[in-house]
Amino acid sequence: MLPRRPLAWPAWLLRGAPGAAGSWGRPVGPLARRGCCSAPGTPEVPLTRERYPVRRLPFSTVSKQDLAAFERIVPGGVVTDPEALQAPNVDWLRTLRGCSKVLLRPRTSEEVSHILRHCHERNLAVNPQGGNTGMVGGSVPVFDEIILSTARMNRVLSFHSVSGILVCQAGCVLEELSRYVEERDFIMPLDLGAKGSCHIGGNVATNAGGLRFLRYGSLHGTVLGLEVVLADGTVLDCLTSLRKDNTGYDLKQLFIGSEGTLGIITTVSILCPPKPRAVNVAFLVTCVPPACGPGSPRPARLPHPALRTPGCPGFAEVLQTFSTCKGMLGEILSAFEFMDAVCMQLVGRHLHLASPVQESPFYVLIETSGSNAGHDAEKLGHFLEHALGSGLVTDGTMATDQRKVKMLWALRERITEALSRDGYVYKYDLSLPVERLYDIVTDLRARLGPHAKHVVGYGHLGAGDTDWKTVWTLPGDGNLHLNVTAEAFSPSLLAALEPHVYEWTAGQQGSVSAEHGVGFRKRDVLGYSKPPGALQLMQQLKALLDPKGILNPYKTLPSQA
Amino acid sequence: MLPRRPLAWPAWLLRGAPGAAGSWGRPVGPLARRGCCSAPGTPEVPLTRERYPVRRLPFSTVSKQDLAAFERIVPGGVVTDPEALQAPNVDWLRTLRGCSKVLLRPRTSEEVSHILRHCHERNLAVNPQGGNTGMVGGSVPVFDEIILSTARMNRVLSFHSVSGILVCQAGCVLEELSRYVEERDFIMPLDLGAKGSCHIGGNVATNAGGLRFLRYGSLHGTVLGLEVVLADGTVLDCLTSLRKDNTGYDLKQLFIGSEGTLGIITTVSILCPPKPRAVNVAFLVTCVPPACGPGSPRPARLPHPALRTPGCPGFAEVLQTFSTCKGMLGEILSAFEFMDAVCMQLVGRHLHLASPVQESPFYVLIETSGSNAGHDAEKLGHFLEHALGSGLVTDGTMATDQRKVKMLWALRERITEALSRDGYVYKYDLSLPVERLYDIVTDLRARLGPHAKHVVGYGHLGAGDTDWKTVWTLPGDGNLHLNVTAEAFSPSLLAALEPHVYEWTAGQQGSVSAEHGVGFRKRDVLGYSKPPGALQLMQQLKALLDPKGILNPYKTLPSQA
Repeated sequence: MLPRRPLAWPAWLLRGAPGAAGSWGRPVGPLARRGCCSAPGTPEVPLTRERYPVRRLPFSTVSKQDLAAFERIVPGGVVTDPEALQAPNVDWLRTLRGCSKVLLRPRTSEEVSHILRHCHERNLAVNPQGGNTGMVGGSVPVFDEIILSTARMNRVLSFHSVSGILVCQAGCVLEELSRYVEERDFIMPLDLGAKGSCHIGGNVATNAGGLRFLRYGSLHGTVLGLEVVLADGTVLDCLTSLRKDNTGYDLKQLFIGSEGTLGIITTVSILCPPKPRAVNVAFLVTCVPPACGPGSPRPARLPHPALRTPGCPGFAEVLQTFSTCKGMLGEILSAFEFMDAVCMQLVGRHLHLASPVQESPFYVLIETSGSNAGHDAEKLGHFLEHALGSGLVTDGTMATDQRKVKMLWALRERITEALSRDGYVYKYDLSLPVERLYDIVTDLRARLGPHAKHVVGYGHLGAGDTDWKTVWTLPGDGNLHLNVTAEAFSPSLLAALEPHVYEWTAGQQGSVSAEHGVGFRKRDVLGYSKPPGALQLMQQLKALLDPKGILNPYKTLPSQA
Repeated sequence: MLPRRPLAWPAWLLRGAPGAAGSWGRPVGPLARRGCCSAPGTPEVPLTRERYPVRRLPFSTVSKQDLAAFERIVPGGVVTDPEALQAPNVDWLRTLRGCSKVLLRPRTSEEVSHILRHCHERNLAVNPQGGNTGMVGGSVPVFDEIILSTARMNRVLSFHSVSGILVCQAGCVLEELSRYVEERDFIMPLDLGAKGSCHIGGNVATNAGGLRFLRYGSLHGTVLGLEVVLADGTVLDCLTSLRKDNTGYDLKQLFIGSEGTLGIITTVSILCPPKPRAVNVAFLVTCVPPACGPGSPRPARLPHPALRTPGCPGFAEVLQTFSTCKGMLGEILSAFEFMDAVCMQLVGRHLHLASPVQESPFYVLIETSGSNAGHDAEKLGHFLEHALGSGLVTDGTMATDQRKVKMLWALRERITEALSRDGYVYKYDLSLPVERLYDIVTDLRARLGPHAKHVVGYGHLGAGDTDWKTVWTLPGDGNLHLNVTAEAFSPSLLAALEPHVYEWTAGQQGSVSAEHGVGFRKRDVLGYSKPPGALQLMQQLKALLDPKGILNPYKTLPSQA
């Protein structure tokens, strides 16, 4: 047993977070639901086919007879009104725009099957769309593909209130599922900033990672079964709800992360973990180098002066904080997120979320989830005592009640939204060895200079577990969300970014897509992370499952076979 | 914080386990290493082709020129000595026997590639073999397939002592890897009774489950990357060691659980969790119905009289114990195993392992693993107090030191070995709703009567997590190892068992293979758990990746396409 010491909670941990409660909740207004984020007066997004070198493949075009057939399959679910088609043709980042003239809204797998059978026969291309919250342009048409929306496939089919196994249609919104299972004392095994709009089918199709990955792992482990409609309309039933089933090839795995290019996921069976009895969130300021300590004047311009110097002072302390808390919190650590000073300034500027802590080059959000509130508080208390005593952490605030927990999480979850309000966003989502994780941010600031409005980095550590006995160790790889904003899209800025960012990542044996996927945007950079043999097998699988290539064309697979 | 109560550890928990230490360790003698388990004088195993209705496919036969070519590829690694070929032709259960005349022992992926290129050109069938510890006959030839052994591919290629990412060749023995990573304060994410012989490549190829599944999940989540040699000799590099990599189809998943029929796994990258600082094992007797309590006389004959009655008294208490401990131990519960009285009697009779607790229809082994010994002991103490106080548990013993932990685990891990000494074993490995989990055992006892020597059931609960607030709830599905022993193989006994067991399982929406896989033995019962469309897609994938069908023929896929 550990010696029972009275806990020395630092006083600052118990203070409240500043800011009116209203300003911390879910996003409101035009950005509230991703996918319909264009405020009035927002300039029109250029057509993808005009901005990017891409040629339409020889699919058929939708005829009156096709529309009549669709109307018979999904009565009242055929949308052709140009105004209603504007939003689903544009991606959430407002950088890609298709020109689809028809959107279908089936309610059942059978309807999806009939639609695909028709499209297969007629050689019509289909773009499956969930919440349209993707970051890589996987969910919007490139040309005139038919948009097949899962929005009306939003029924929970069953929930086993003891095992936590949820079976639901693909179009259920993640946040609604979270609410549903939380009322039954479970949680969804994944959580994303886009939860208010994203569909579970889209999450699975894109193998979404998100904020609970550290604790509950990938969807390849938590998805128990899938029902998928194949390109020719065949309904493939891999919808087992057994935790253990080792009967032949695990076919469902093929579709997790295939972005709708091999089949359309219509039903998902997923294992939900029990709702933790105790959740604590600490929002901390890691050790600030003297030059930019709390006494120094507020910088007049972003980024913080300390971040403009090479070597990114302060990031080493983020890593050390991670190692220490991983060792001391063990199995109850459920999230470890970091964000840089520019992120904090942007959520303040665009979303009016005030920082609850002193200024710093880096901020860290730590979450614990466990079954025993007393034990968890004690573990967290020991960690904070140690971190404070050793000078690793200099300021922070803590939350256990749900309202404040949400407020603190909002600082991290709403960065994407703040960035999108800052201008055109160039987004990168990299897996990198943590020792080099932040170097690319400082590198790009130097490289781009005034051509970029802001260059920011945030993300998750915790890709690997650390040795508990070593206080100062580095985990293996981390996930950096690298974002560059500019007033508008500029081919010259793009040229300064790419292939530089990808080459840099490949040079570190990193991944050019840690969690966002491939979609339209990254299909031609796959070669930085996948060898030719793997790309060839991907092409073969595509040819096997979708020989006419009608499912989500121009996505996921390199344009050059 | 929980109120700090003094712990009331029941006195019986602190007593030692009986039996000489030597009798509890790893198996010794002919059964020590699976795959070479035939004691002298053991009757010869009949040829598979004589016992089962199976016809040789039109593969070539190995010529002198082939042998010369192999000798050039793997100098000194071509085995043709009939005596040396006896053991690798027979499966561990000694119920299947092939007649392969050549075994190859490559050391590198490149050698495997050259071998397969040659075999592909010559249309020679290949049977990949790891530790030959499989339960379904997947690792031995059916006819004269060339045995490709991974035994000499046993090098650790790298270990990241901070992230715990291990990269090793496919032929590394699981127990040796466990030792290797444990010296570096990590553990392997899987553990099996066969660990002393099984190879990690075989574990991945068969998607082995095992004793740590409850805590660390399936290999689909913990395997980070694979190198695989395809049927034509192409080396497929999916050997990323990144925790997060979302760049296109997750090809490695195809090979996890494909039993060497789609490619031969040559290198594995796997994520090892940190070694828990505290491990506790409790071996408990759940509430014994009055008719068979500790005061009643020892039954003269197996099975225990209470188990012969319908409704299996005692099993409900096992389930209740699981629910209670899951709720009270939360995130530190790392294993929950049960075994029936016959299992205990057989490990006593054949392996001389004495029970450390009073006789009972059912025994339960609970393991906790956590980062804080004090907190874990307190959680376990509260659970035991509750279980004892409510009469759910009537006897037990507990271990924290490694020696006694191993002794208690041996009771569970060595059941398979005890069964194999009991006679011919008919093995079933089912996923079933826990409410009905044990019914099939009592059903079979009644059905088979004296035709069976013993009918036993043991396995894992914990397929689903339970609601912490409900003391009496049932988890979703569990994994039952159902075993029937007889003096010798008998077609009539087989006919009484099959398809009855599979039909019964399908009737419960269960799986006919929870973790053992398909291999030769279960390929024609896949239809009980997989719909025709899924079987067809399996066949298509096989045809894509191995068009000549040379890789592990007669396995995994139904014999009728």
